[in-house]
Amino acid sequence: MNTESFKPLRIGILGAASIARKNVRAIQQHDVTKCKVVAIASRSAEKANNLKTIHIDTNGQSDIEIFAGFDAYERLIKSNLVDAVYIPLPTCLKKEWVLAALDNKKHVLVEKPVAASAGHYETMIAAAKLNKRYLMDGTMFVHNSRTKHILDHIAQIERFGRVTRINSEFTFRGDEDFLSNNIRTQKGGDLHGCVGDLGWYCVRLAQLVSKKVGANDIKSVRVSGWKLNAEGVPIDATCLVTFHYNAIQERDNNCVLSFHCSFNHPLRQRCEIVGTRESLEISDFVIPMEGPSLFRLHSEELTVNDTYSVQSSEVVDVPSGPAQEVLMWMNFHTMCKSIEDNGWAKDQEPDIMSLISCETQVIIDALMESIKRGGDDVKLDE
Amino acid sequence: MNTESFKPLRIGILGAASIARKNVRAIQQHDVTKCKVVAIASRSAEKANNLKTIHIDTNGQSDIEIFAGFDAYERLIKSNLVDAVYIPLPTCLKKEWVLAALDNKKHVLVEKPVAASAGHYETMIAAAKLNKRYLMDGTMFVHNSRTKHILDHIAQIERFGRVTRINSEFTFRGDEDFLSNNIRTQKGGDLHGCVGDLGWYCVRLAQLVSKKVGANDIKSVRVSGWKLNAEGVPIDATCLVTFHYNAIQERDNNCVLSFHCSFNHPLRQRCEIVGTRESLEISDFVIPMEGPSLFRLHSEELTVNDTYSVQSSEVVDVPSGPAQEVLMWMNFHTMCKSIEDNGWAKDQEPDIMSLISCETQVIIDALMESIKRGGDDVKLDE
Repeated sequence: MNTESFKPLRIGILGAASIARKNVRAIQQHDVTKCKVVAIASRSAEKANNLKTIHIDTNGQSDIEIFAGFDAYERLIKSNLVDAVYIPLPTCLKKEWVLAALDNKKHVLVEKPVAASAGHYETMIAAAKLNKRYLMDGTMFVHNSRTKHILDHIAQIERFGRVTRINSEFTFRGDEDFLSNNIRTQKGGDLHGCVGDLGWYCVRLAQLVSKKVGANDIKSVRVSGWKLNAEGVPIDATCLVTFHYNAIQERDNNCVLSFHCSFNHPLRQRCEIVGTRESLEISDFVIPMEGPSLFRLHSEELTVNDTYSVQSSEVVDVPSGPAQEVLMWMNFHTMCKSIEDNGWAKDQEPDIMSLISCETQVIIDALMESIKRGGDDVKLDE
Repeated sequence: MNTESFKPLRIGILGAASIARKNVRAIQQHDVTKCKVVAIASRSAEKANNLKTIHIDTNGQSDIEIFAGFDAYERLIKSNLVDAVYIPLPTCLKKEWVLAALDNKKHVLVEKPVAASAGHYETMIAAAKLNKRYLMDGTMFVHNSRTKHILDHIAQIERFGRVTRINSEFTFRGDEDFLSNNIRTQKGGDLHGCVGDLGWYCVRLAQLVSKKVGANDIKSVRVSGWKLNAEGVPIDATCLVTFHYNAIQERDNNCVLSFHCSFNHPLRQRCEIVGTRESLEISDFVIPMEGPSLFRLHSEELTVNDTYSVQSSEVVDVPSGPAQEVLMWMNFHTMCKSIEDNGWAKDQEPDIMSLISCETQVIIDALMESIKRGGDDVKLDE
């Protein structure tokens, strides 16, 4: 591979969480991502080295620098080796390290949920703008070419009609140890539990849809059922988010997202977008399954005779191209370069991407508040 | 057809609602149902005659007696021509006419929702027992052979695991006229709106599942989102019903039904039953689509490599046999005969079927109460 044909964005990884493995592998597709892993920091030298072994070049060598031990994060963030930092640390540590990275003039790709609260994330965005560095979250499916296809499809109002409902599920089963001890179920770790970890994707999908079709206002959220672990962290939640078409003066001008997220159920990652003329279904919206990249369209047209209904359905196979995580790093590179060249431009892609993350976090916070209030509605339009 | 080979149950139809057409057609399969339509009563002679034309014998004749005009219902109910009455009248009229039919020693098959309140239905059951006549509701999918297959499958705890979640949707789109003027959206007609008309199926499915697997207690219900029409009748609702495994002493011993019912969305009738080892999916659980009678099983087993997840799935094709509405009338005949011969036997099928209808109505009532209380939990286990 000719790495001389572009100046790659040099990435440092802060923490050796398992999600980092997928990202290291993706980043290494230099031709597409124009990124390169150059450093890994971990409290544990062993974990850092394990992560490093994912990238071995054709000579059996890896030129990734390891920062290990107590001050590893700080040394990496101050290092002149890196242009940008990927931060998959537990949510409660994010504010500290994202700000430290930005203040040291590094671009940041931070895992979701992006912060302990939307207020923290606003502080991060301000620091990014001040330092002229980019801040993006690690939601991969957003970058999948299928997502663009779907959004383009539902925007055809003559064909799809108006979107009135989004249903989704993202669940996986953690064992007893996970539910009690994993960082994702700890108040001092990922305090939003399954709402922040899994609900994040359901909320983001609905945001993308609602923005695309013009249901921009978020009216209210509500958690109708939930389970907390002994730490008080949600491990299962059934949620409702109401978006609003403010340009439409009819009685029914809402678009409702209903979703279930859980660490207590088998892997399910279905979503359904319901329009007034068609509906659309994906069975693997977060982590694409092996094989063709599909979505299903169901026509509103149906024949009901005295016994049977017939509804026509169509399976759409999207040319898959690079994996979504590879596209994510490619987009990250593009947007970092754009900011380096032009600064933060209001209403341009980097700004929109950061603001949408902030809005996701606002919704996650409101869902946590609903749980705190016993499942009451939390209004967001006041 | 040789109608001499059995003594058919002679059915009178009270009201010429469109659902009656499907039932008349089903009943006429004498060989299977052992039932026969002998009379139709309607305020409108024209509507009654229209319904009658569905059954024309090989000689172009129909021997169905028509009762038309103001006192048509009463004359049919008192007629010696009929053994049993099918009652598809609006919900608010059910108590009066079901009681009148039972008191005139007719068996009754009453459309769902069975009553304006569970209290009314209890009065009907008492009248049925007193008069030694059978009372059943018109929920067709219960009688489908696929339903039995599914219940047998999920009861295999070694294979399916414990059922923890049921998701379902039953929606169809009514036009503006339907939403404002149809009997199903009128306070003085079917006062429960979409909750009683469509939610009924979602609730019944969950009851069948929960009883089969031993999650017998209903803890609470809650409506998390809803729309009412100008009459105050629900036309859209997102609901949660919590069932409880009282024999299981673990922390997570609930089974949650989450469902969406609506007159405001395209036809959707999916259900998903989620076990700890497998999950099961049906895309046409209420009104079977044309073609093979299917359900899908998804294994809990999955392989996640760094990019892809693979989850094995299996499509099960159930030998379909007679249509579910034909089986319903066959079962109705069997149970009417059983009561005529043996009376009401506690814990026998007729008793269980009537009690499950009553429980469905209790849940529907509680959901309506939740809407009245602004979406609060309504406890049912106190």
